[in-house]
Amino acid sequence: MGRWEPNARGRLSEAALELYVERGYEQTTVAEIAMRAGLTERTFFRHFADKREVLFSGSDALREHLVNAVAGAPDSAAPIDAVAAAFESVGVLFQEGRERSLRRQAVITANAELRERELIKLASLSAALADTLRLRGVPHPAASLAAEAGVAVFKVAFERWADDPGEPDLSQLIRESFDELKAVTAGR
Amino acid sequence: MGRWEPNARGRLSEAALELYVERGYEQTTVAEIAMRAGLTERTFFRHFADKREVLFSGSDALREHLVNAVAGAPDSAAPIDAVAAAFESVGVLFQEGRERSLRRQAVITANAELRERELIKLASLSAALADTLRLRGVPHPAASLAAEAGVAVFKVAFERWADDPGEPDLSQLIRESFDELKAVTAGR
Repeated sequence: MGRWEPNARGRLSEAALELYVERGYEQTTVAEIAMRAGLTERTFFRHFADKREVLFSGSDALREHLVNAVAGAPDSAAPIDAVAAAFESVGVLFQEGRERSLRRQAVITANAELRERELIKLASLSAALADTLRLRGVPHPAASLAAEAGVAVFKVAFERWADDPGEPDLSQLIRESFDELKAVTAGR
Repeated sequence: MGRWEPNARGRLSEAALELYVERGYEQTTVAEIAMRAGLTERTFFRHFADKREVLFSGSDALREHLVNAVAGAPDSAAPIDAVAAAFESVGVLFQEGRERSLRRQAVITANAELRERELIKLASLSAALADTLRLRGVPHPAASLAAEAGVAVFKVAFERWADDPGEPDLSQLIRESFDELKAVTAGR
């Protein structure tokens, strides 16, 4: 007890998701998660602040990835293209864990508090991307609009991907949804 | 007591907003709101479920107005134009109560729970507009993207309006922000 457990974080995350799907998020305790993972509660709290955090720790990584991608886009890239390229590169990350992403989404959809949390994470993602665009010299309100458009496309593409197991990979859906948004805003 | 009070709803709403600004939302009780309005708590609860509801009862009216406007747009209108026209017509409603809108926004911004609630209301607005577009025959995902774009433009335009007292009327900012979104998504 108290020693470093290899892969403890991954095992805890997997155990939590299993229990949230089986018993529901609200009914699951940290003690049960730790037991299912074969670890102690102390180990759980070394990795996660609480049982909700297990579902959202990936959101911070996602935001960081997107912010870095937008910040590192070529100077010549139009704001919307910098945002689109960033989201397309994120699709690959999700693809690797499609099964996990879909189970996580089902747990969140079933719980009002978790849905709220997801909306907050998306709003903070949009704000972070707008800030990053402004640092690139994109004026207001174009920076906010490009960031909001990116998050809107991501939401829509993710839903399409989650709702239909026959859908192609998420990156492709994100690319298609950006093209669709361009057509929609052009009044087609 | 218990009899119908003319304008009770408006007086309660005004009293609540005053108190939220003066003392903070969390510190204000329903009893204090009723007292400030010169009414009873019983009257308060005939009009509002709780003190949070005072801030969000307008959101349902807003959604209904937008849904009706999109549903009633000419058949020939492109989805984005139906959505844009609906939001522009809403700007007029806010203009009439600019002072109240800005105070309400300040109260919401200062409280995490209220910010969450606002995000939920906007998400449900987007979903309702997407449903309305689908009833008009707009396919998926264009319906969702046009709805999300509309809400994004509204958020950005509202912030511009709220942040700068010198800004023109909200309808004009909404129209400008739609044009800006078109330019942004076109890669300009």
